[in-house]
Amino acid sequence: MPGDPIERLSALFERFPGIGPRQAQRFVQFLLRSSLATRRELIDSVQELSKSVHQCVSCMRYSTGAKGECSMCVSTDRENSLLAVVASDADIAALERSGTFKGKYFVMGTTISLASEKKNGLRERELLSSLSKRARLGLQELILAFPANPEGDFTALHLRDSLRSYAKEHGFKITTLGRGLSTGSELEYADPDTIKNALESRK
Amino acid sequence: MPGDPIERLSALFERFPGIGPRQAQRFVQFLLRSSLATRRELIDSVQELSKSVHQCVSCMRYSTGAKGECSMCVSTDRENSLLAVVASDADIAALERSGTFKGKYFVMGTTISLASEKKNGLRERELLSSLSKRARLGLQELILAFPANPEGDFTALHLRDSLRSYAKEHGFKITTLGRGLSTGSELEYADPDTIKNALESRK
Amino acid sequence: MPGDPIERLSALFERFPGIGPRQAQRFVQFLLRSSLATRRELIDSVQELSKSVHQCVSCMRYSTGAKGECSMCVSTDRENSLLAVVASDADIAALERSGTFKGKYFVMGTTISLASEKKNGLRERELLSSLSKRARLGLQELILAFPANPEGDFTALHLRDSLRSYAKEHGFKITTLGRGLSTGSELEYADPDTIKNALESRK
Amino acid sequence: MPGDPIERLSALFERFPGIGPRQAQRFVQFLLRSSLATRRELIDSVQELSKSVHQCVSCMRYSTGAKGECSMCVSTDRENSLLAVVASDADIAALERSGTFKGKYFVMGTTISLASEKKNGLRERELLSSLSKRARLGLQELILAFPANPEGDFTALHLRDSLRSYAKEHGFKITTLGRGLSTGSELEYADPDTIKNALESRK
Repeated sequence: MPGDPIERLSALFERFPGIGPRQAQRFVQFLLRSSLATRRELIDSVQELSKSVHQCVSCMRYSTGAKGECSMCVSTDRENSLLAVVASDADIAALERSGTFKGKYFVMGTTISLASEKKNGLRERELLSSLSKRARLGLQELILAFPANPEGDFTALHLRDSLRSYAKEHGFKITTLGRGLSTGSELEYADPDTIKNALESRK
Repeated sequence: MPGDPIERLSALFERFPGIGPRQAQRFVQFLLRSSLATRRELIDSVQELSKSVHQCVSCMRYSTGAKGECSMCVSTDRENSLLAVVASDADIAALERSGTFKGKYFVMGTTISLASEKKNGLRERELLSSLSKRARLGLQELILAFPANPEGDFTALHLRDSLRSYAKEHGFKITTLGRGLSTGSELEYADPDTIKNALESRK
Repeated sequence: MPGDPIERLSALFERFPGIGPRQAQRFVQFLLRSSLATRRELIDSVQELSKSVHQCVSCMRYSTGAKGECSMCVSTDRENSLLAVVASDADIAALERSGTFKGKYFVMGTTISLASEKKNGLRERELLSSLSKRARLGLQELILAFPANPEGDFTALHLRDSLRSYAKEHGFKITTLGRGLSTGSELEYADPDTIKNALESRK
Repeated sequence: MPGDPIERLSALFERFPGIGPRQAQRFVQFLLRSSLATRRELIDSVQELSKSVHQCVSCMRYSTGAKGECSMCVSTDRENSLLAVVASDADIAALERSGTFKGKYFVMGTTISLASEKKNGLRERELLSSLSKRARLGLQELILAFPANPEGDFTALHLRDSLRSYAKEHGFKITTLGRGLSTGSELEYADPDTIKNALESRK
């Protein structure tokens, strides 16, 4: 039944991250049981999202507010000397929770898929354009803050390579997040690669 | 930020069953990254849901189709002698998957909360109205098909009590789903109550 | 190192139920760090086990006490009219926890493997010998209390077949544990087979 | 039944790391069903353990072989300039699996309990005695390789303090394992403390 709105909505929820057929159906059941006002609110919120959310022209993250640059990018409380390059908007939230990073961000949008080596969606051109501005504003260090998995490593390696001469020319260095034992982990259960990193980054 | 559509939508997704703040935010991020067409599709599907989905006047389940009685209730392939009374629409899907039940359904909407003993949303009046019709159509057995938990047991007990004289008068019996070992379970790990039921319902 | 006692003991612990190489090594480390007295106690307990534990000649379960019949088999508090036939000693403990069964037991030792259809270790001869005595003592019902999985079902089917004429001749019936919703389970997440059983055993 | 060998053995297995009452009973059942030869082998292996395993006088780890110093401590393939101080024998296995550490070890036996601040079992005296020898053999770096949890951190802090002047006098430095993202972890799910460490140890 392609025209059945229950089936259509269920199929749409299945495309949401982490949602399988069973939970997608529960979402639809939830909306069926909800009041008309709740469904109206969902419709309104999604419409609002399309209307008032903009992608920052500088860091590429999504936020509400004025068009152009986002509040983080124009903030004078954040240092222009540091730029954290992350894979997704959610990673910005993670770095903010740590409470220690006070620089600016750039969102690459994705990491390079190892299966296909495809860079679809990787915002390399936008990064270069953002860097030309960041360099003028006194960038001293670009931190590649990617997930500690093969895709993240490969993307970091690729960007290090492609940005090397640009970084040298404009006087900023490129770093990556430190590897080692994560808080709470015991040696006995740590994987060999993590212990290797923890030994290499001992201090 | 009450007016922020990202916050508003995230708060709304948190009301979805099984969704916490973190996943609600991921849903919003997913929609932000989605195309305008995808968001448009979500809006349309929810609007369709409000428009074309009706609650069956007989069994109270939600489905698409003509107003009035749903396709299951009018089907002549399903026996009028059996009526399964379930807590939610999702339980109908569960009984259908078993492939053995060929009777009709009635959806109570909820079970009685043990904490409050509140029966908000329990469709007792609607059940009686439906039964008056079912009785005329030859109802012989009403199966209380509630979850095997304290709320389900309490609701079944309550309905058995309140329907006893009505059932006697109209010549149908009231049964409940059998308890015992569920498929795949081992005695060693079964809870004492389940083993007690399995012993009592041995045959 | 076949002669290395650390390796030998670790390999032996790996044969314990549910223990992998990592935990087997932790057990050895635990014993290494333990006092000599603890290791001595382990040795003594295992020696005692070999010495004082007997297999009951009637129900085949292992217990301490006098040779011959175990305390459960000679108990006059337990009914001779009921006999629960289980796969393993651990299943006796499970039935006892339910607090409702007051009959006698027989331990088959295993279930039939579906892969090989081998009946190695299935105590059929011993069951017949035990039944000849149980029949004289007034057995009225033999309950096949096997796990609710294909092996348990196949073993129950096999015993029902092979004992049919014997049961008829000696005037006892053969039953199996009831199937249905186990305590705490919700219809929505129950497997189709369990719902089928719950519908069939409704009452 | 204190004298019951089944109970005694079960109670003993409950003292094994990670073993609860249920699994302890399954171990006993396993031994009951095992052949006499298997039980004999367990007894022999534990006896062997007591006989042939020695604690190395230098690193305090348990191993088989000659009395006195263990094979790792006397090995000329391992560097005398590096010493990893670990909490338990199992941590040595973890560091060995990483394949990068080629120095010597010392096993502290435990970490300091934060609840009691008790240092029972912490081999401080033995460490000093070992260090006096290690210093003569050219020790240049002592690596505190404790788990990344509060107990491990507190123990490392305590040893750093108490060894500071000794290390200065004998010309070796004290380091700790690096902290940061463990292999495979994503920023989105990393705890704030780990991200803080990953930012601080970026390179």
